[in-house]
Amino acid sequence: MITLAELNGIPALEQRVAPADHPIRGIISDLDGVAYRGDTPIEDSVKAFRGWSERGLPYAFVTNNSTKSAAQFAAKLSRIGIPAEPSQVFTTISAVTSLLERRWPRATPVFAIGERPLLEAIEDGGYHLTAVKPKIVVLGFDAALDYAKLRTAVRAALAGATVIATNPDVLTPVHDGYDPCVGVITAAVAAAVPNARPIVLGKPQPFLIEQALAHLGTARHETVMVGDQVGTDIAAGKAAGMRSILLASDVPFNAVADVVPDRVIASLLDLARPETVGWRR
Amino acid sequence: MITLAELNGIPALEQRVAPADHPIRGIISDLDGVAYRGDTPIEDSVKAFRGWSERGLPYAFVTNNSTKSAAQFAAKLSRIGIPAEPSQVFTTISAVTSLLERRWPRATPVFAIGERPLLEAIEDGGYHLTAVKPKIVVLGFDAALDYAKLRTAVRAALAGATVIATNPDVLTPVHDGYDPCVGVITAAVAAAVPNARPIVLGKPQPFLIEQALAHLGTARHETVMVGDQVGTDIAAGKAAGMRSILLASDVPFNAVADVVPDRVIASLLDLARPETVGWRR
Repeated sequence: MITLAELNGIPALEQRVAPADHPIRGIISDLDGVAYRGDTPIEDSVKAFRGWSERGLPYAFVTNNSTKSAAQFAAKLSRIGIPAEPSQVFTTISAVTSLLERRWPRATPVFAIGERPLLEAIEDGGYHLTAVKPKIVVLGFDAALDYAKLRTAVRAALAGATVIATNPDVLTPVHDGYDPCVGVITAAVAAAVPNARPIVLGKPQPFLIEQALAHLGTARHETVMVGDQVGTDIAAGKAAGMRSILLASDVPFNAVADVVPDRVIASLLDLARPETVGWRR
Repeated sequence: MITLAELNGIPALEQRVAPADHPIRGIISDLDGVAYRGDTPIEDSVKAFRGWSERGLPYAFVTNNSTKSAAQFAAKLSRIGIPAEPSQVFTTISAVTSLLERRWPRATPVFAIGERPLLEAIEDGGYHLTAVKPKIVVLGFDAALDYAKLRTAVRAALAGATVIATNPDVLTPVHDGYDPCVGVITAAVAAAVPNARPIVLGKPQPFLIEQALAHLGTARHETVMVGDQVGTDIAAGKAAGMRSILLASDVPFNAVADVVPDRVIASLLDLARPETVGWRR
C-alpha cells in the first residue's frame, strides 16, 4: 500500500510536537468511541464539548466512517447534545472525493462499494458510477456487501483499475462486539490481485486532520488530536505533527510500533478547560 | 496457516519420484481446466478418458471445488462423455467432512459459508449448522456470500472458533475471465482476526490425492497427477510424491518456487496410451 503523502509527493511532516505545557486552542476529535459509542452518547464527552462550545474553543471531528454524510454526523452530534455544524465534520467521503477531484477528470467511470452517502458524493462530484469497465474502484463499508459486488471489484482490479479504500480498519466496534470493516474487503481484493496496491485513505493518514486544522484556523502546535484508537487516531495525529491524546476505553487495541500518545485520559472532562489549565501529564 | 500434515502429525512424504520411463497404471486428474472449462468439454480430454476407460486404465478426479457433490460431478462428466462414478471423484467437501469426523464429535456447532452440497454434507455428517456460537467456521465458495455471513464468520473467529477453508484458491477461472474464490474470503477473515490461523484444505495439500490413490489401488510410483495449475495441482502431486503433469492452457499461472512439473503436455492425448508408451519427455 502506498501512502497519500507518497502519492502526492508531499514531504513528510516534521514530527516536532509542542511542549507539554502549551495551551490548547483547538481540538480535533474522533467520533465513534469519543463522542459516542454506536448510538449511545458518552456523557462526559457531551459535557466537555458543550463547555468548549460555550466558551468559544473551536473543535472539529474526523472520522473514518464513510456511511454518513457530514450533515448526518452533525445532526447526530446535535441530537445527543454536542453543538456541531456539517462544516466541522470531516469524513472519509470527503477524502475520497478530494482525491478523485485532484487526480481524475469528471465522468471517469467509478465502481464503488459503499453506502448511499458515499455513492451520492461520488456522483455529485461528477463521476460516473458503473460496474462496467470502471477505471477506479472505491471500497467503503457496505452492510449490503455481496458476492456480485466483490466480483465486480476484483475483476476491475484485475483489469487494472485503481483501488481506493476509504479507511484501513478491519474491525469496527459496535454495541455488542466488533463487526468486520472495509479493511477486510480491501484484504480480499488485495489477496486476489496482489498488484492492485490499494490507496488506503482515512486515519492514520493525516489528510482528514489537515482538512480539520485548516477549518479551525488554529496553530498546529496549539491544536490537539483526541481519539480512542492508537493505530488510527494517535498515529494520524502524530503524522500531522500534533500532540495526540488517547481516550482510554474498554475497547482493546493493539500497540503500534513507534506510536505513543502524548497523554492518556479517562474522560474528556480531564481536558475540560484546556486553554487555561494547559497541558498536564 | 498450518498444513494438514502438521495438524495430524503425518511425517512429510518422501519426494522420491519414479523414473521418467516408468509406465503409468493409474491417473489422478484435476477437473476444471482438464476435463472441461466451466461448462465446455475439453474434447481431447474427453477422448483420452474414454480411451482409458475402454482399456481399463483406472482414473480418479480431485477438485478444490466445493459447490457440487461427487455425484453431481460424476453426472457432469458422464454428460460430456467421460465415464465416471461418484466413487471416482474426491472434492473438498469430503476433505472437510473427513477432517471434522477425525477431530470433532458429532453435534459440534458449525457455521459454514458455502453452497448447498457443502452444507448438506456437513449436516449429513451429524454436525449442527448454526450461526449461534459455532466452534468451527467452514469457509467455502458461495455465490450468495453477503455481509451478514462474513460478519458471523469474523465474530466466531474472534470468539475462538477454528476456521477451516475448503481450498486456497483466490481466483477461479470462468468462461469470461476470473471470479474471486474462497481464498479471498479466508484473507478477509484472517485480516480481521490474525490469530485465527485458518486450516486450508484442498490442493496443494496432498489429502485429496491420497484419497484418490487409495481408491485406485495403484502403486504411487505408477500413478500420475494431471492438472492445469502449478500452485495447486502440481504442488499437490509433488507433495504426494507422484510424477505430476501440467496440462498447458491459455490460463496464465504464477510460477511457484520449487514446484516444477515432471512434464508439460498440450493435450491429454499426448498421454493416450501411457501404460504402453511409458513416460516420454
